[in-house]
Amino acid sequence: MDKQVLLETRERVSPYIHNTSIFTSSLLDVMSGSKLFFKCENFQKMGAFKMRGATNAIMQLSKEQQEQGVVTHSSGNFAQALSLAAKNLGVTAYIVMPNNAPKVKKEAVLAYGGIVTDCEPNIAAREQAAQQIVDEKGATFIHPSNDLDVILGNATAAMELLEVHPDLDVILSPVGGGGLLAGTALAAHYFGNHCLVIGAEPQVADDAFRSLKSGQIETNDSADTVADGLRTQLGDINFPILQKHVDHIICVEEQEIIKAMKILWERLKIVVEPSSAVGFAAVLKEKEYFKGKQVGIILSGGNVDLETIKFS
Amino acid sequence: MDKQVLLETRERVSPYIHNTSIFTSSLLDVMSGSKLFFKCENFQKMGAFKMRGATNAIMQLSKEQQEQGVVTHSSGNFAQALSLAAKNLGVTAYIVMPNNAPKVKKEAVLAYGGIVTDCEPNIAAREQAAQQIVDEKGATFIHPSNDLDVILGNATAAMELLEVHPDLDVILSPVGGGGLLAGTALAAHYFGNHCLVIGAEPQVADDAFRSLKSGQIETNDSADTVADGLRTQLGDINFPILQKHVDHIICVEEQEIIKAMKILWERLKIVVEPSSAVGFAAVLKEKEYFKGKQVGIILSGGNVDLETIKFS
Repeated sequence: MDKQVLLETRERVSPYIHNTSIFTSSLLDVMSGSKLFFKCENFQKMGAFKMRGATNAIMQLSKEQQEQGVVTHSSGNFAQALSLAAKNLGVTAYIVMPNNAPKVKKEAVLAYGGIVTDCEPNIAAREQAAQQIVDEKGATFIHPSNDLDVILGNATAAMELLEVHPDLDVILSPVGGGGLLAGTALAAHYFGNHCLVIGAEPQVADDAFRSLKSGQIETNDSADTVADGLRTQLGDINFPILQKHVDHIICVEEQEIIKAMKILWERLKIVVEPSSAVGFAAVLKEKEYFKGKQVGIILSGGNVDLETIKFS
Repeated sequence: MDKQVLLETRERVSPYIHNTSIFTSSLLDVMSGSKLFFKCENFQKMGAFKMRGATNAIMQLSKEQQEQGVVTHSSGNFAQALSLAAKNLGVTAYIVMPNNAPKVKKEAVLAYGGIVTDCEPNIAAREQAAQQIVDEKGATFIHPSNDLDVILGNATAAMELLEVHPDLDVILSPVGGGGLLAGTALAAHYFGNHCLVIGAEPQVADDAFRSLKSGQIETNDSADTVADGLRTQLGDINFPILQKHVDHIICVEEQEIIKAMKILWERLKIVVEPSSAVGFAAVLKEKEYFKGKQVGIILSGGNVDLETIKFS
């Protein structure tokens, strides 16, 4: 791993992704006491940063592998991302989705041409269904977060942010499966100017926080958080990157996530999903820590079901 | 009135307003059959285009007038706009608001330093309360839409749009009081390249549509539209501009407005208020007319109450 690998990744995926806008708000700066730079991955193709990693992972397969298709299991955004990235690259995508995934996300997968297989909403069922497709179709399994090519693709979001704002003191990223946080950490390590990386995680799914404390990958007994993109756990590929390059993780309560999300919708006039709001929630929770700092916040996505979302 | 007046207006107000983003979407282009350019005034300061007209109107007052303050009556966005513009320019703003105005808008007026007087939700009560403040405080009344300086300020949104996309075939603007549509029409006349201007109006408050047909200012018996910014009627200053420079008005049903708004939220990932969505609703309704055209759409604002808004 070196800087060159990241530069090559960015060059590879850039024709297939948006270099998304960076929003600022003098009102939110006053509210937080810091200078905030929001990297708007809700404006990314298919509505989330996951387009970056999915695109890179498929592009790194051999021609023979691409012809057999790709398969993943995902609660939502990575399913859409792999479907659209595959479509853009002329590859077949098989998607295993838990049967309680948000309706809007399942419809989007189908619209992007993904071939959907339903499964029970637990990790064992997801893995089993995906393995069956690997066996039967010869498709290559691509993990949503514990895959180095996915992580490298994800890193391009923070690379773009640091290209415009090279002197950020810190970048916050949500942490669920760990793929975005790991990519962000690599980007900050190679392209930041002493830029710290901090993870933000729902308190009720604080497995990453506990993993960094204990030095081994911890799991959640339950993960009933409104931030539905952050219910998953770390993996053996991204965890060592987090251990090496992430300063610490801040955990936030459910009500703090919802309040932060509402402020982003009301003040920035943008649609972000609950998982996107944990970084901003962490800044509001730890104002004293961030005071006066230049803070990058990755808003990870904007795919919500408008008819079911609640703000109180 | 000439081109120079508009150029001077833009130079005057530009330090106090945002040159807002222009969004595009390949998906919405496919959906509509035309090439769409969304001028995102939801990202304007205080969340709506009205900041432009309010700023210009206050700046055009004499120093003596500014010292006595300004007053207006408004169901929402102009109240916020006048309050913030006044604050930015060191002027006192008195705001008469109907007692059924959205809570989020009243709170914003107070936050911007406006001095609020409640009144009954009808035009007579609004005008009477405002006149009382003129008499007692010596404040200058500024009408939200039927004021030439307000209209000229509003024109700067379409001027910015045409500066980036000079070959637009048509620009759509919502029409309520007529101030935005009149400003847009002037901008297209002086800075467009044979660019038509079309108004978009709720069918249940189609006074502007009927006014252009009859040649005199018509009123609404009732105006129970979800597009709460469009319940007002034309005035004697903006109506002649519309007669001269607006091609026609397209009326849309309530369900078409809600559907269009939902698509904008879901696909562009932005928060726009119902009044903003009538232009896009008109394009979806009259697809054949707009087919293959380069279409500018002014998204007028993004101030909604997230806890009460409904999408079905």
